[in-house]
Amino acid sequence: MRTLIIAAVLTVLPFSASAKDDPKKEAVEAREGYFTLLGANMGPLAAMAKGETEYDEAAASLYAANIEALTMYDPLIHFTEGTSLDDMDDTEARPKIWSNFQDFSEKYKELQKASSGASQAVKGGRGNLGAVVKKLGSACKSCHDEYREK
Amino acid sequence: MRTLIIAAVLTVLPFSASAKDDPKKEAVEAREGYFTLLGANMGPLAAMAKGETEYDEAAASLYAANIEALTMYDPLIHFTEGTSLDDMDDTEARPKIWSNFQDFSEKYKELQKASSGASQAVKGGRGNLGAVVKKLGSACKSCHDEYREK
Repeated sequence: MRTLIIAAVLTVLPFSASAKDDPKKEAVEAREGYFTLLGANMGPLAAMAKGETEYDEAAASLYAANIEALTMYDPLIHFTEGTSLDDMDDTEARPKIWSNFQDFSEKYKELQKASSGASQAVKGGRGNLGAVVKKLGSACKSCHDEYREK
Repeated sequence: MRTLIIAAVLTVLPFSASAKDDPKKEAVEAREGYFTLLGANMGPLAAMAKGETEYDEAAASLYAANIEALTMYDPLIHFTEGTSLDDMDDTEARPKIWSNFQDFSEKYKELQKASSGASQAVKGGRGNLGAVVKKLGSACKSCHDEYREK
């Protein structure tokens, strides 16, 4: 019975037809999903910090809380061997990620540090938000400069 | 200076060219990313629970921790009005989500409850893992049955 229920669960998983049963495509899709979510929250935060949109404390805190949640996720499991831009379409992951995996992991820890407490830190005004966005953005950029193809 | 740095941050955000500047497409892409990540962790957990792969306590705990992290994220912000399968391609979101948004939110809370403590609960053997997968899977299925197009 348990096996039946678990089998039913598996059929509802949302992998695209193309990625199903191809672990490398799954890996690329998963990390793309991860960075899309980061961007979906960084985007409005940065727009608010720049004054393109009005500062909204509750909204800022929600986006920042989402980023905190995401940085509790381990996206490194989706950077499996053989999934660089030399191996796969639809990825900007440079091969040097895998020859510098320790440094790549450290850079992710920097993002985790930058996001820690962000949902509180963005409160109290646009200046506070700006400081958080700057910290987060620097962590993003530091890794992208090194490991993401332009 | 701050504005310059934030502007630099914005240019590194990973939205696809098609979704950029189209909030509805961004919303659909973001939630697709979210469910891809859930699936990327539920998949191997369920395979382990079914005995298709060997039970591995550390791996099970890592996948479960990822699911816990994801359920601290608020994906409901990406279910914006006008983004059902009647409005958009590439989504299976039924229009009734928006006429039952309270119930839809409750269903998400059920998933949050099911995942709470999962990274510990999956430890100690395949039976323990199975119980967690069953709980998580039921929460997934209960929402999919109602709100996701087959």
